[in-house]
Amino acid sequence: MDDTSPQSSGPARSAFETAGGVMRFPKGKGLRLDSGATLDGLEIAYETYGRLNADGSNAVLVCHALTGDQYAASPHPVTGKPGWWSRVIGPGLPLDPQKHFIISSNVVGGCMGSSGPASTDPSTGKPYGLTFPMITIADMVRAQVMLIDALGIDTLFAVIGGSMGGMQVLQWAADYPDRVFSAVCIAAAARHSAQNIAFHEVGRQAIMADPDWRGGAYDAAGVRPEKGLAVARMAAHITYLSEAALQRKFGRELRKDGLSWGFDADFQVESYLRHQGASFVDRFDANSYLYITRALDYFDLAAPHGGVLAEAFAKARNVRFCVLSFSSDWLYATAESRDIVRALNAAGCRASFVEIETDKGHDAFFLDEPQLDRTLRGFLQSAGQMRGLS
Amino acid sequence: MDDTSPQSSGPARSAFETAGGVMRFPKGKGLRLDSGATLDGLEIAYETYGRLNADGSNAVLVCHALTGDQYAASPHPVTGKPGWWSRVIGPGLPLDPQKHFIISSNVVGGCMGSSGPASTDPSTGKPYGLTFPMITIADMVRAQVMLIDALGIDTLFAVIGGSMGGMQVLQWAADYPDRVFSAVCIAAAARHSAQNIAFHEVGRQAIMADPDWRGGAYDAAGVRPEKGLAVARMAAHITYLSEAALQRKFGRELRKDGLSWGFDADFQVESYLRHQGASFVDRFDANSYLYITRALDYFDLAAPHGGVLAEAFAKARNVRFCVLSFSSDWLYATAESRDIVRALNAAGCRASFVEIETDKGHDAFFLDEPQLDRTLRGFLQSAGQMRGLS
Repeated sequence: MDDTSPQSSGPARSAFETAGGVMRFPKGKGLRLDSGATLDGLEIAYETYGRLNADGSNAVLVCHALTGDQYAASPHPVTGKPGWWSRVIGPGLPLDPQKHFIISSNVVGGCMGSSGPASTDPSTGKPYGLTFPMITIADMVRAQVMLIDALGIDTLFAVIGGSMGGMQVLQWAADYPDRVFSAVCIAAAARHSAQNIAFHEVGRQAIMADPDWRGGAYDAAGVRPEKGLAVARMAAHITYLSEAALQRKFGRELRKDGLSWGFDADFQVESYLRHQGASFVDRFDANSYLYITRALDYFDLAAPHGGVLAEAFAKARNVRFCVLSFSSDWLYATAESRDIVRALNAAGCRASFVEIETDKGHDAFFLDEPQLDRTLRGFLQSAGQMRGLS
Repeated sequence: MDDTSPQSSGPARSAFETAGGVMRFPKGKGLRLDSGATLDGLEIAYETYGRLNADGSNAVLVCHALTGDQYAASPHPVTGKPGWWSRVIGPGLPLDPQKHFIISSNVVGGCMGSSGPASTDPSTGKPYGLTFPMITIADMVRAQVMLIDALGIDTLFAVIGGSMGGMQVLQWAADYPDRVFSAVCIAAAARHSAQNIAFHEVGRQAIMADPDWRGGAYDAAGVRPEKGLAVARMAAHITYLSEAALQRKFGRELRKDGLSWGFDADFQVESYLRHQGASFVDRFDANSYLYITRALDYFDLAAPHGGVLAEAFAKARNVRFCVLSFSSDWLYATAESRDIVRALNAAGCRASFVEIETDKGHDAFFLDEPQLDRTLRGFLQSAGQMRGLS
């Protein structure tokens, strides 16, 4: 085996054609980072659905959100739940493994198999913890480029993602416009606002306030900052739902008959939030949460272009863009998507824009939202025809 | 001294006519609580500005918000800062000590001198901690009634407050309509929504996750859950400002030149939030924060009236209401105030309603907001004329 070529390993799985594993990049093929550091021994965990066609024209990269992972359409190995985008990826669905070769990889900095702060630092043999270098959205995309290079893919038929995934989509179009045929950016923004940063800072402070965080070195101490991470998740989770959705789902409904006159979870919304926090810590690493929220806060696509967002898209005129927002999303509101579309228009790019009317809030892209399905299907079919996919 | 009459003590202060101290209610004059318990040895800390007139017709009760206190127009003894409503209370201001006798008291459950979880339980000689009984907004009002009784006031010319203060105003009008001439409810709601409860639950979980909380018995251990309380404050503080105000004040401005590539406070909004958290713990008690947020979550003015808010106001037809909201308040949005006004109208009450256009968010009632000043001045002058105040 040529030890300068990346190696992939991992079990084969059933259902529709599913593959994947961990792509390991040898020393000397380090990931160059925005911070100036280079990450050696990069590993990227990924899943694929479907098969690359003969001319390599049907590859779709699905980019995940902050707490997502590569299990977009395969059961999650920890929770056993269906993939987070099983509603979109599957036979007869907008992303169809019978037609597309769908790739979903865990971002660098993540905790589901890609190199991240919980990984072992090859130079010390110990977990990185806070010695892991800071990463950015552009770094995540650079790692994805290495992955698709290793998979032998030149141009992606589509890059698609929601929330942080949408930011990666924009970064792809800005940095690698010749390798992207179409780009679907859902419920995202071209930069993090002060309020976005503020919510993330609350989460980070909650984690770092937990004495079991141990300055990031909790792994060595055999503990985990579960309480802090749960609080971080609870705070973030509120921003993923609209006020109306919370009210519709829970209102002031009590868990039991009457009030407890104490600090137990009296209201259903409290036990729901507590459950969100408690279940999250089973599947997510606290340091990864710090690193990835930081990457989001640092995200400002226009910054390297003198603050002019249109300049970021100057070379992306051949990319077909679809920008989607949800009317009740207050994390990355429709106004943020409009800013993106305005910049795309100013840059002379082809952009479709749809604001989907829903009361479900930011997380609508995971949920049963027929207009989202219709829009994705229509856009991808049309782009597929242009690309020569049946 | 008759040991069944309440006693007041405290230093006299200068500026305009200022008095106050702590009203101590003797045993046998306990505060009856919604939970069914009775709180014996009640103490209510209060400040007064101005002087009660001969016919007792000029008394105004100012009700404070979640983290407020009785120092509405006198310097805060811990922070040294001017009173939280010094912009509204003072000579020539809407609440004028030369005209009104203004009373501001610390709510029961608070931590600035009124009975609360940090107080000594007279039956044990130790701090209550979590053995302090649960309180409600109605309990706060009941304690205020005991205070104004002790001060020899029959009917309040006005009850006025913002946020949780506004809820107390509504509760006063519902429970003691014959003792309220006019009521000013600012940036409040008639009940806590699922989202409101969710944010409070995050704060409580942050406090209770802090190992220095010690199940509420931190006083005895000589520690304080400062980190948890700071995180709670940070999360809540985001809800007090509009997204636009945060963006206008901080945007993505950095503290230093360039990014730190670490978890220091890179962005100004981060250091602002950290400061909010750190300074809050100097002046507030963590258990009080638990109790008062719980009182807010339990608040649902319509609930004892079969869920019909208008019924809560059925006996308040002689009260002159002024309801104010801020257009960018997303904690207690204008829609909540409209619900109150609709119920007042349905009950046949006299209600003025003003939505103030501002981008400052919920906390606008503390801030320089000329339309708020004008509206308060106009309403109070008009009510004053009806009341026979010059």
